[in-house]
Amino acid sequence: MFERVFADATARDWDDAPDGTLRMAVVGCGWQARAESLPAIATADYCTPTVVVSGSAEKRAELGGTYRVTAIDYEEYAAGVATEEYDAVYVATPNRLHLPHVETAARYGKAVICEKPLEATVERAERLVAACEEADVPLMTAYRMQTAPLVRRLREFVRDGGIGVPLRAGGDFTFPALDGERGPDQWRLDAELAGGGALFDLGVYPLNTVGFMLDTAPVSVSGETRSAGEAFDEVDEHVDFNVTFEHCVGSFSASFSGYPTTRITVQGSDGRIVVDPAFGAYENRDVTVDTDEGHVRVIGVGADETREEFDYFANAVLTGADIEPDGRDGLADVRAMAGVLESAETGRAVRLDGDRESGGPRRPRDRRT
Amino acid sequence: MFERVFADATARDWDDAPDGTLRMAVVGCGWQARAESLPAIATADYCTPTVVVSGSAEKRAELGGTYRVTAIDYEEYAAGVATEEYDAVYVATPNRLHLPHVETAARYGKAVICEKPLEATVERAERLVAACEEADVPLMTAYRMQTAPLVRRLREFVRDGGIGVPLRAGGDFTFPALDGERGPDQWRLDAELAGGGALFDLGVYPLNTVGFMLDTAPVSVSGETRSAGEAFDEVDEHVDFNVTFEHCVGSFSASFSGYPTTRITVQGSDGRIVVDPAFGAYENRDVTVDTDEGHVRVIGVGADETREEFDYFANAVLTGADIEPDGRDGLADVRAMAGVLESAETGRAVRLDGDRESGGPRRPRDRRT
Repeated sequence: MFERVFADATARDWDDAPDGTLRMAVVGCGWQARAESLPAIATADYCTPTVVVSGSAEKRAELGGTYRVTAIDYEEYAAGVATEEYDAVYVATPNRLHLPHVETAARYGKAVICEKPLEATVERAERLVAACEEADVPLMTAYRMQTAPLVRRLREFVRDGGIGVPLRAGGDFTFPALDGERGPDQWRLDAELAGGGALFDLGVYPLNTVGFMLDTAPVSVSGETRSAGEAFDEVDEHVDFNVTFEHCVGSFSASFSGYPTTRITVQGSDGRIVVDPAFGAYENRDVTVDTDEGHVRVIGVGADETREEFDYFANAVLTGADIEPDGRDGLADVRAMAGVLESAETGRAVRLDGDRESGGPRRPRDRRT
Repeated sequence: MFERVFADATARDWDDAPDGTLRMAVVGCGWQARAESLPAIATADYCTPTVVVSGSAEKRAELGGTYRVTAIDYEEYAAGVATEEYDAVYVATPNRLHLPHVETAARYGKAVICEKPLEATVERAERLVAACEEADVPLMTAYRMQTAPLVRRLREFVRDGGIGVPLRAGGDFTFPALDGERGPDQWRLDAELAGGGALFDLGVYPLNTVGFMLDTAPVSVSGETRSAGEAFDEVDEHVDFNVTFEHCVGSFSASFSGYPTTRITVQGSDGRIVVDPAFGAYENRDVTVDTDEGHVRVIGVGADETREEFDYFANAVLTGADIEPDGRDGLADVRAMAGVLESAETGRAVRLDGDRESGGPRRPRDRRT
């Protein structure tokens, strides 16, 4: 059973080999879009960038030239300029600005892939999902880990009973937000724009990835936040949170300061999985699986999941396939994270009500299983 | 800085090379005493077994012969039989029986090393500590991890700033209690005798070891327990608990079912440490340290800490040195674990009041630093 996890570590189990190419507008040209997403879209099989939207004349000139695409500003985007040049929109602005840009896309009938977390508050995330549902346009939450082939293989391994019954999972994402060129002047440290700090920006990775790998969703959450650094006076510098999933428990953490760490662990009745590092976009994954069958450690497995993410999205839009990390999936995580912040205030666990229809705990099953 | 951790991985920083040999009575001859402790005492430098106490005539005959020691039953022990043959007592009975045997030892002026957890309830653990203090006999809680040279080196590494400021720690101890020859008929599954399940028997390891490595103690705790298996109707089969230490947070778990795992992680501002496996008495430790200086992974380091534990105890008793894992240390963990179980009932975090004098959060500093 081991071998399959690693043997097919670059296989696409969702690829319908669609005809045509999805033309994409990239809305928001910050670091994420420029360093990760635009290069991925430009080299993907089933999509291509045709429009970039930025408030910066400099970025418009630079990116318009580099990618030979139409470059417009936010007012032009909202007014419907160049809508004939794109079929879908990728939204990578600060969290709190997702809603208006997604509403614009929905108004013009464009498919949407929106960065995580879906929005800065539950209410705005609900409106975002509703806008796409009412306009009947596809909506994907940009959970790149869900399209990482290795993560998909590990999920199948778990689903096939590879570690027995999952009992406990955990994850940590520590990324020193002030290191490098960004410094303290960034929207991730602005409570209004971001919705939360380390939790919203980093904690969402292990939270969503563990839920995906175990095919489950949060039922209740609790957590604590800490901020010591001056730059973090508005948002959580550190968060430690516990999630009760439908059939197991999860223990998570995320930090904007500290030694860089990205890790997932899953323990079951008959085995365990450790992925460490787990989340870095350009980092090799290092995976350890222990079961009664033996011990396997593999370093540097998988494929570039950012490119996989956009091809997964384009494949689904072009063929009409279901999107698993859909708006409901993104909304469930915003609800869970808002619950964690509420718990940090009150000291009590927060139960997440709702069902599939209201974005609540049930996660949609993969259409292929 | 790295090198020192592993270079001195078998060094004893507490050894005063005492004259003489501490003669020990082993009270309670279950698996722990027979498989681990008696062989360690018999091969230790500064102590030797001279008396065994057991309720089983068969065990008395067997152990009396094997170790050429006086073998008596519990009534004889309580009545002071053979007190002239031993200087100190090692108590390894079920948790709830520690108190009377320690009281007996104290009454006869014998030094005591008592298995962890110190007792099954806070009130009984307090009485146990008081009995030794009133009789002015040394009391050590048998935290063997505190005498594992590798753990001591890692603690020094942390103390010297090797990973910067500790931010977060964690640990897991999963041991399938029903596997092997023991089956469901064992005192660890009896709430009255054990005081708790996976938490008391296993969770105490990562809880105490992390506190020791970080030189800190619990301030507040919260947790959840689960039991699915029939054998665990009285006690927690699984426990997940969070500890707020004085300067960082800890996330722990322990299970009586599941794939065997023993792990400690410590993350700091400038590095991290993973020990996995961490707690198995006969298992090689596998240690990974990551800092800006680099990445070091060492497999199979350290020395047999059970033998170290008894030599540490004997050294302290023979020379009059302070014992760091003393009764207060053991009592603090019983308080913390009782708090976890209370939190599991109420759903609220439990603050641990008290100071050094009352066994509360302050941990004594190592006398040598």
